[in-house]
Amino acid sequence: MQLKPYKINIKTGDALVAVLHDSTAHRMDLHVGDRILLKSDRSSVVCVLDVTKGNFPKQKIGLFAETYDKLNIEKGDIVDISAADKPNSLRSIRAKLDGKRLNAKQLNEIVHDIVKGQLSDVEMTYFVSGCYAHGLNDAETAALTRAIVNNGKKLEFKGKIVADKHCIGGVPGNRVTPIVIPIIVASGVLMPKTSSRAITSPAGTADAVESVCNVTINAHKLMDIAKKVGGFMVWGGGVDLAAADDRMIRIRNPLSLDPEGMLLASIMAKKHSVSANHVLIDIPVGPGVKIANAKAAQHLKARFLKIGKMLGMKVKVIITDGSQPIGRGIGPLLEMFDVMNVLKNAPEAPEDLREKSIMESGVLLELTGKARKGKGQKMAREILESGRAWKKFQQIITAQGKKKIPKLAKFSANFNAQKNGKVAAIRNKEVAHLARIAGAPKDSAAGLYLHKKVGDSVKKGEALYTIYASSADRLKYAIEFANGTGGYEIT
Amino acid sequence: MQLKPYKINIKTGDALVAVLHDSTAHRMDLHVGDRILLKSDRSSVVCVLDVTKGNFPKQKIGLFAETYDKLNIEKGDIVDISAADKPNSLRSIRAKLDGKRLNAKQLNEIVHDIVKGQLSDVEMTYFVSGCYAHGLNDAETAALTRAIVNNGKKLEFKGKIVADKHCIGGVPGNRVTPIVIPIIVASGVLMPKTSSRAITSPAGTADAVESVCNVTINAHKLMDIAKKVGGFMVWGGGVDLAAADDRMIRIRNPLSLDPEGMLLASIMAKKHSVSANHVLIDIPVGPGVKIANAKAAQHLKARFLKIGKMLGMKVKVIITDGSQPIGRGIGPLLEMFDVMNVLKNAPEAPEDLREKSIMESGVLLELTGKARKGKGQKMAREILESGRAWKKFQQIITAQGKKKIPKLAKFSANFNAQKNGKVAAIRNKEVAHLARIAGAPKDSAAGLYLHKKVGDSVKKGEALYTIYASSADRLKYAIEFANGTGGYEIT
Repeated sequence: MQLKPYKINIKTGDALVAVLHDSTAHRMDLHVGDRILLKSDRSSVVCVLDVTKGNFPKQKIGLFAETYDKLNIEKGDIVDISAADKPNSLRSIRAKLDGKRLNAKQLNEIVHDIVKGQLSDVEMTYFVSGCYAHGLNDAETAALTRAIVNNGKKLEFKGKIVADKHCIGGVPGNRVTPIVIPIIVASGVLMPKTSSRAITSPAGTADAVESVCNVTINAHKLMDIAKKVGGFMVWGGGVDLAAADDRMIRIRNPLSLDPEGMLLASIMAKKHSVSANHVLIDIPVGPGVKIANAKAAQHLKARFLKIGKMLGMKVKVIITDGSQPIGRGIGPLLEMFDVMNVLKNAPEAPEDLREKSIMESGVLLELTGKARKGKGQKMAREILESGRAWKKFQQIITAQGKKKIPKLAKFSANFNAQKNGKVAAIRNKEVAHLARIAGAPKDSAAGLYLHKKVGDSVKKGEALYTIYASSADRLKYAIEFANGTGGYEIT
Repeated sequence: MQLKPYKINIKTGDALVAVLHDSTAHRMDLHVGDRILLKSDRSSVVCVLDVTKGNFPKQKIGLFAETYDKLNIEKGDIVDISAADKPNSLRSIRAKLDGKRLNAKQLNEIVHDIVKGQLSDVEMTYFVSGCYAHGLNDAETAALTRAIVNNGKKLEFKGKIVADKHCIGGVPGNRVTPIVIPIIVASGVLMPKTSSRAITSPAGTADAVESVCNVTINAHKLMDIAKKVGGFMVWGGGVDLAAADDRMIRIRNPLSLDPEGMLLASIMAKKHSVSANHVLIDIPVGPGVKIANAKAAQHLKARFLKIGKMLGMKVKVIITDGSQPIGRGIGPLLEMFDVMNVLKNAPEAPEDLREKSIMESGVLLELTGKARKGKGQKMAREILESGRAWKKFQQIITAQGKKKIPKLAKFSANFNAQKNGKVAAIRNKEVAHLARIAGAPKDSAAGLYLHKKVGDSVKKGEALYTIYASSADRLKYAIEFANGTGGYEIT
């Protein structure tokens, strides 16, 4: 059948979709979710059919923006419509949901079809569900990682040693990445790092770095920057590496599902797609962070090591203390101030942040062979204390597009201790939530500055932390929320 | 934030959806899949957010037809947008996916939110996946059935005995329903029957009946018909009973998933929603039908009986022979000719169809107490042979809107035996597929007429069946497909 195209000016961001009026679909014996082959004078495309009963033209076929563009439609064009077969990948998705193991070919077909917009949201959800309910074993996880990388852009640094790191997350203020990168790059090792933005936390690395420079840079420009200064620290979502992964994350979000194998593949694909071959994984453990106990951390560590091996990556996994926030700032700019104080060797630099950054840098220097075993931390400390890391940091942010450093949010208030004593605990989730109420990460200048950490003595009325917010309302709301213990335990 | 509404003239048929440009969503800290509360001057609604990067107005909010209509928008209106909480039902869906059991309250919340358009396709898919991967036990299945009925329209026949039947399906030509209904109704028992259309078969009961009368009738009119003539035989999709079920079926279709508990709830909800309290379930067993062996049939039988009891229904389950097609016609009109020949006591009426219809009617007459134990079949046969069933059939199709009986498709060809022998088997799937290739069910006048059934002697060159198609092309294609064994085994 031939129909006039009708452009629906919406990008679905996923599946290629076309819409027919219910009665037109009925006439063609087509149903919601069917595949149809569309041919214009210039191009052809298979897409998923949606059907509407609304006040929609019966003599036209509605094309969402991506479908319209792929067909290269020009004025006066007619679109030819015929039934198309379901993709093979649907059979594999069904098999996964039935508890079967998938091989590399099957996983590659699924990921290929995701990237090409051949799978609807419903179909992708079945894939995620199957992986969640029945798990992905090591072979499947490695194959899924390769499939994600092979069906996306890749930054190639042939024959070079490329370092990368990843933190499982959940610890507020834990902003070691923008310190580790300049130390490693200053040592002469490439570190082309992509990071994520916050979803439920008060700041992701990309949010924090964005307060001092541009982080949305395309792949071509990134290769230039890496060549020129040896590394970068940008937002992964701006580069379109591991595109399939971004689509699967969108499907996982509504239920906050993290199928373990998919999470591992997601992390490793992002490393693999920047050609990283020496990777440090940090698994913080503590109450209120993603990994709550040592047993879960050990399990995850073993899987990372195994999958790293299968992918030909040198992987080192460290399990760290996630029992309280790292550093003093919580919120994009406040965290960046901590980072810069460490890099500048300023007296107010938080010691825990500095020491964790040096430790991690040391591990990477040894893993990449830059330092001999047992000598990595010493080398990292030298690079930091000599000012070479600070200099490299300046080069990187200049290459990415340096910004004038903004001021902290103009309203602030202290949250004070209600009694004399010692800080026994700081509850990660509560202080993170409070920083978000103050406006972080959307408002990069908002958040908390912690004056007291676990083990510190406090006097009644002394400030435990300062809350920063950009409006009096926000501040008032945050103070009300903090009221009570404010996330601190004093004994 | 306040934005002008922009109507997108598409009915999603499911979730209430609004669309913002990516940059507008970003400014409001909203993400794809978030819930937003929309307020117009006249109404308010919670819907699911979609985000587009296309050439979409940044100062407007796009509203799909259902959302636009619910907000009662008038010219010049502005829509107020704020973040809304996720529905509770998402927590229950997550729990199901984690393998937990759900209680009646949780299942009711999920079904309520499905019907109210509060769950996106992705979220509904997670629900179906959870039910598929972990199953629904009897209590969950009964609760899901009640939830579907409570959140949809219901036809009430208070205090009355109401009969219904259901066949698990998969046997071509098995059109007993339009024979059983007039027999039961003629006996004085109400039988308000909704049926489905074919999805993958050459005809559903609704498709077959539609060849002689209207089957798309609203609930109000149906009550009138039931009062007047004692029953009806219509398309369930036209009544909007069990609306939640229709939405779940749409989600199950892409992978042809039939989670057992959901299938049971779907069937029982359709009975429950017409107030049926005496229900016959037919489970045909044979190669190429849905239930392939006796063990699976016994398992299903036990579940139907248990759930029926929990719902306060009298249920009788029969396991029948599904090894070959029933009757001679395959395709809507061809099957209806068989039905009418049985009702008219015509000599060419297929015996197997007549006897199966009498047997099922007998079971229902005994179940409803109209006939004493062991006397049901005799009563059914009397009603049929006396012409009372044929008279009742005429009353029902007249009340629904009788059509002039159409002619069979104008092109036909015989498929002949290649050798002398006996029909050892007819492969259900092959002959069903052939009838579809000939044009059924879309073309109600197309299909097959079987001259020979299992056990019949045939001579080389004698017609096994006639293929009917509305175009020479269709016929040619069907003949090519039949070439070979044509679905028959001759020994």
